[in-house]
Amino acid sequence: MRATYLYGAGDVRVIDVPDPRIEQPGDALVRVVRACVCGSDLHPYHSMAHTHDGASMGHEFIGVVDEVGAEVTAVRPGDFVIAPFAVSCGVCEFCRAGLQTSCVRGGFWNDAGLGTAGGQAEAVRVPLADGTLVPVPVDEHADEALLAALLTLSDVYGTGWHAAVRGGVTPGSTVTVIGDGAVGLLAVLSARQLGAERIVLMGRHTARTDLGREFGATDVVAERGDAGIAAVRELTTGGSPIVLEAVGHLPAYEQAVGIVRPGGVLSRVGVPQYEAAPIGFGSLFGPNITLTGGPAPVRAYLEQLLPAVLAGTVRPGRVFDRTVALDDTAKGYAAMDDRAALKVMVRP
Amino acid sequence: MRATYLYGAGDVRVIDVPDPRIEQPGDALVRVVRACVCGSDLHPYHSMAHTHDGASMGHEFIGVVDEVGAEVTAVRPGDFVIAPFAVSCGVCEFCRAGLQTSCVRGGFWNDAGLGTAGGQAEAVRVPLADGTLVPVPVDEHADEALLAALLTLSDVYGTGWHAAVRGGVTPGSTVTVIGDGAVGLLAVLSARQLGAERIVLMGRHTARTDLGREFGATDVVAERGDAGIAAVRELTTGGSPIVLEAVGHLPAYEQAVGIVRPGGVLSRVGVPQYEAAPIGFGSLFGPNITLTGGPAPVRAYLEQLLPAVLAGTVRPGRVFDRTVALDDTAKGYAAMDDRAALKVMVRP
Repeated sequence: MRATYLYGAGDVRVIDVPDPRIEQPGDALVRVVRACVCGSDLHPYHSMAHTHDGASMGHEFIGVVDEVGAEVTAVRPGDFVIAPFAVSCGVCEFCRAGLQTSCVRGGFWNDAGLGTAGGQAEAVRVPLADGTLVPVPVDEHADEALLAALLTLSDVYGTGWHAAVRGGVTPGSTVTVIGDGAVGLLAVLSARQLGAERIVLMGRHTARTDLGREFGATDVVAERGDAGIAAVRELTTGGSPIVLEAVGHLPAYEQAVGIVRPGGVLSRVGVPQYEAAPIGFGSLFGPNITLTGGPAPVRAYLEQLLPAVLAGTVRPGRVFDRTVALDDTAKGYAAMDDRAALKVMVRP
Repeated sequence: MRATYLYGAGDVRVIDVPDPRIEQPGDALVRVVRACVCGSDLHPYHSMAHTHDGASMGHEFIGVVDEVGAEVTAVRPGDFVIAPFAVSCGVCEFCRAGLQTSCVRGGFWNDAGLGTAGGQAEAVRVPLADGTLVPVPVDEHADEALLAALLTLSDVYGTGWHAAVRGGVTPGSTVTVIGDGAVGLLAVLSARQLGAERIVLMGRHTARTDLGREFGATDVVAERGDAGIAAVRELTTGGSPIVLEAVGHLPAYEQAVGIVRPGGVLSRVGVPQYEAAPIGFGSLFGPNITLTGGPAPVRAYLEQLLPAVLAGTVRPGRVFDRTVALDDTAKGYAAMDDRAALKVMVRP
C-alpha cells in the first residue's frame, strides 16, 4: 500500500510499504477513508534530522474496518470508525477516568514501541481496537462536509474542546484563544458551545479569524507580543480570566502569561516546543495563575460531541480548506507550512 | 521603637526606628503582641546583598489596635487583631473574589511602594485597615497556645490551607506534601481537615515529621530526589493525584513533577526561588498535570478557619517550638536557619 513518510525537514514522500495485517487478537485493520495533516506534523517537518528509513506520518483518520482480531468485540468489518489520535485500552484506570492519552497499555500512532504506523496511508493496523475506535452510523460515501466534521473528531475538535474544558469555560465566561490554526478556531467553537460570552481570538490571518468569528469569536486581536498583550488586557479590562493556548511555541506561552488575569487559568493544547519556561513569582506564582492542559483525550469527548456533528448543528469540518490525494500529501504539508492552507485533508 | 532589619545575608539587627504613626485616614496602628520568623524570611537571610540602610523584616503578627485613622470603621482601639501577610482593601474585584494577594490597592509588608514596614517590631502602621485586619474576641493575655494558633492564621496555616484548597483535596483524597517546615506541616493538617484519607509527608527531620503524623500524615518518606520519587510512586501505586509543594526550591518542584500522577494537580505555596522550570511534554504537558497555587489569600480563609482555632479543636500553633524576645530576633533567624528550631515566635 501507499503511505506517507518524512525523511527529514521538508522531505515528505509517499512510498510503497507492506500492507498492514492483524498481529494481535485485539487489533483491527482500518482502510482509511480520509486523513489529514496536523499543525503538529509541521514541527518535525521544520526540524527533523535526515534519516535513511524515514518516519511514518499522520495521526488523524476516519475509515472502514476491514478485518478484526479474534478478541475484538466493539467493532466489526464494514463499520465506519473514527480513530482518535491516541491508542487506548478503554479499561485501565486512566481510560476509565477519561484520560486515554495516559492509558497504561496505549500510546500514539507512529510509535515504535507500540508498533503503530501512521494515518496518512491507505490502511492502518489499530491495536487495542475495542478501546480505541469509535464506530459511527455513517456511510463512507456520506457528504464531504460530514466526513470533514467527523475527521476533526480524531484530533483538532476534541483538542479545542479539551482546551476549553480544562480552562473551565462555563456560561458567561470571558476567554482568549491564542492561535488561529484549526485547534485555535475549534477552541473558539468549543468555548462558544460551553457558553462563553466574550471570546477574544488572537490571530493574524483574516480568512482564519473570519471563520473564528463565525465560530463565535466576539473580538479579534491581530497584534502579537507586547502589543497583543496590551490589546487583550484593554479589551478584558485587566486580563483574561481564561486563556487557551493553541500554538505550542514559547512566545505564545509568554503571550498567554501576559494576558491572563490574576487568579485565572492558562490551558495549553498546543504541543510545547520548549521544556523550560517561566513559572515563578513574576509569571504564574505571584498572581495565582493555574496552568493546565495537555494532549487531549479526544476519545473521552466523542460521545458528547458526536450528536451535534451528526445533526449538522456544529460544523467543525469547516477548518478544512484543501484536499489532496494521498500521493500529493507532500503538497499538503507545503501548503500548510506556507499558510496557503489552514488544514489539508488527505484522500487515499 | 525597636524593629528588625536585615542588612545583608546573615546580618539581622534590631534597631531603634521612629514610632509609626497614622498617615492615611484608612490606617490603623497596631501594637504587636506576637510576631514570628517565616521560612521565606530565610531566603534573603541567605542571599541578600549588603545594604547600608537595611530592609525592614517580618510579615506575620497579631496585636492590639492602638489608634485608627478617621475613615476606619471595622476595628477600634483596643481590638485584638490578626494581620494577614497581605494588605488588602477588601472591596476591589480581587478582594471580593477571595484573592486578596492580588488586591489592586494593597501589597505586602515591607513594601516601599506601599510604605509599609515589618511585623518583627513593637508596632506596625497598617494601611487599608478595614480590609486587612481581622478583629478576634481574644485577650492579649490569653494562653500561649491560643496566641500561637492565632499567629499561624497570619500566614502559615492559611498558606497550608491554600495549598490544599488549590490542590483540590476532598474527602478520600490521596495527597503528598513536600516539605516538613511549618507550611508543609500545616498543609498536612489542612488536607486532613478537608478529608484526605492518605497523606504522604516528605521530610527528613523526625521531630517535624512526628508532628506531621499527629497532624494527619499517614506515611512519611525521608528520601529525596529519585529515591524519594520512587518511594512515593510505590506508596501511591504510580503517583500521587495531588502534590502540595511547600518548599520553593527547584529540586522540590522537580520532585513534585516526579511524583504527581497523570491527570493530577501540583499545588505550590513555597515561594519559588526560580523563574524558569520544566513544563513541557516531558514534565507537565504530556501527562496533563495541572500546576496551581501562589501566595495564599489568607484573609479569605480566616472566617472559615477561626472557629476551630478559637475552640481549640485544631492546634496549628504547635509548629512554634521556640520563642525569643524582640531584641533576640537574630537568634531566631539563626535557629531556624540551623534547623534547630522549626518556627520561632518573637515576643516584643
